[in-house]
Amino acid sequence: MPELRKDPITGRWVIISTERGKRPINFTKKHTPLEEGAFCPFCYGNEGVTPLEVLAYRDSNNPPNTADWKLRVVPNKFPALQIEGGLDRSGDGMYDKMNGLGAHEVIIESPSHDLTLGDLTEYQIEDVFWSFRDRIKDLRKDDRFKYVLVFKNHGEAAGASLEHSHSQLIALPIIPKLVKEEIDGSKLHYDLKERCIYCDIIKQEREQEKRLICENDHFVVVAPYAPRFPFETWILPKKHSSVFEESKKATFEALSKITKDILCRMGKALDDPSYNLTLHNSPFTIDCKDYYHWHIELMPKLTHVAGFEWGTGFYINPTPPEDAAKLLRDTVW
Amino acid sequence: MPELRKDPITGRWVIISTERGKRPINFTKKHTPLEEGAFCPFCYGNEGVTPLEVLAYRDSNNPPNTADWKLRVVPNKFPALQIEGGLDRSGDGMYDKMNGLGAHEVIIESPSHDLTLGDLTEYQIEDVFWSFRDRIKDLRKDDRFKYVLVFKNHGEAAGASLEHSHSQLIALPIIPKLVKEEIDGSKLHYDLKERCIYCDIIKQEREQEKRLICENDHFVVVAPYAPRFPFETWILPKKHSSVFEESKKATFEALSKITKDILCRMGKALDDPSYNLTLHNSPFTIDCKDYYHWHIELMPKLTHVAGFEWGTGFYINPTPPEDAAKLLRDTVW
Repeated sequence: MPELRKDPITGRWVIISTERGKRPINFTKKHTPLEEGAFCPFCYGNEGVTPLEVLAYRDSNNPPNTADWKLRVVPNKFPALQIEGGLDRSGDGMYDKMNGLGAHEVIIESPSHDLTLGDLTEYQIEDVFWSFRDRIKDLRKDDRFKYVLVFKNHGEAAGASLEHSHSQLIALPIIPKLVKEEIDGSKLHYDLKERCIYCDIIKQEREQEKRLICENDHFVVVAPYAPRFPFETWILPKKHSSVFEESKKATFEALSKITKDILCRMGKALDDPSYNLTLHNSPFTIDCKDYYHWHIELMPKLTHVAGFEWGTGFYINPTPPEDAAKLLRDTVW
Repeated sequence: MPELRKDPITGRWVIISTERGKRPINFTKKHTPLEEGAFCPFCYGNEGVTPLEVLAYRDSNNPPNTADWKLRVVPNKFPALQIEGGLDRSGDGMYDKMNGLGAHEVIIESPSHDLTLGDLTEYQIEDVFWSFRDRIKDLRKDDRFKYVLVFKNHGEAAGASLEHSHSQLIALPIIPKLVKEEIDGSKLHYDLKERCIYCDIIKQEREQEKRLICENDHFVVVAPYAPRFPFETWILPKKHSSVFEESKKATFEALSKITKDILCRMGKALDDPSYNLTLHNSPFTIDCKDYYHWHIELMPKLTHVAGFEWGTGFYINPTPPEDAAKLLRDTVW
């Protein structure tokens, strides 16, 4: 069983995976590009290779775990966390741990092996967001979970290990540190000003325009004022909303349009970069509807320069967000 | 002038570098390995190419900025921060910024182009630590600075852009977020128990032995209980000590021995991995001598899998530290 362990100094929880697949010796291999043309467990006809699907969208009446799906969600075959069991909190001398309890699922975004998320149609991308919503709604019924982390790794430099485009989600019995920091920071602002800090950011960015990349009726895309990474980009709903999974049809339609737009701008301007996409959403166990504002963060992986920053939390960004925003704003795809 | 900008939500400061060299378009190049055989500004005879040295160790009486040095410290030619000027704190609507004031220096660890830090003799490694100490002592006289960050990027995956082995330091007018978290976490433990948390960790690790890698009279090397990364390793002084630069000769001798030992173990066991090394030291402006404990953290860069973790602060580590420690403990170099 994997373990959740707490760093006694900073209070940060980490998952220590105990699966046997990744023995130490594996790390001596230098990293290899994603294998092309190899067997793909996410393609049509290979439904039997993955764990049984927990959600799928189909136009046909085909039964579960057969072909003809449009989108498919399955448990991760090599999960970082395990769904069965209780938390079983315990100590080890001065240290604290609990069972690595949680869900780890894979969203196979389309049957097309070669299309990236940005290549999909707006309707397909909308399905991806609906699937996030459906899975979060289902998982929040399980009161062992406090947070669902939805993310996507695109490209080898961003940590993707399979080529076929997919997102992932992890349901957690804890609230991750950075999520907690965002919630706390937003609350501090709200306590001072009785306004949502993200709403204030959107207002200033739309007035100043210099970090604005694109927008539609429901969303705005900006380069944040103090980005850690070159071309870090946030997608924010214009209307205050703290809970992603309560969004309506019109919101998901607009979100899929703007997501396709920013992914295509980035792909064109930066030559198909590897990237990480993360959904920042309210935890299940904190009522932050007045002051938190769900959003998506998009981080292309363009440099290794940030290496030491893991150890210090200190970031040097060589690209002013105003320059990044201008390049993306001016990009026509 | 570079800028220090504060993320309004999390309070994290970042450096936005405004140097012209790194225009957006540069990022479209895929990363390239370090160039071998190219001109090296850190080799003998090229002293005129670097900015004027701020420190050098020489056996001869040669004048500064000529050859025959054993170790040389020069300002970074492409500094992330600028040494001249005042802080000039200001706002931009709801945002906060200040001038990118600071020092950014390079420690050229030896004249040998092809030797890594682990390849150097113990005497040479000791010189590297003395140079850290000498530069920190000098920079702390400047009351604009609150912290000096000493770090080393080895290998391209860790962010090194030059092959010739070197460390770097950045003197900062702020205390980095993760440093502050360590200080606060240590203080909390001290307030509860009147003991240093790192001293407690050392005691438990030496008793349990399962995460112990090696030790000598003055230092212990462990895999931490809740590491974020595979083979993350800490070097801790056994005797409580909060201020690195107040260490004595015997300490630096022992530190150089144990550093060579762990670097060689890691190099042998993991096939010369890229790594980041960071010195975790007391800030100049916080009196934490009772509860903080300086140490070195060493993080080999073995996987890209951690990609999404930038966005969430949430870490999945596929290698239990007990396994990592055993492998390194059993490695003979």
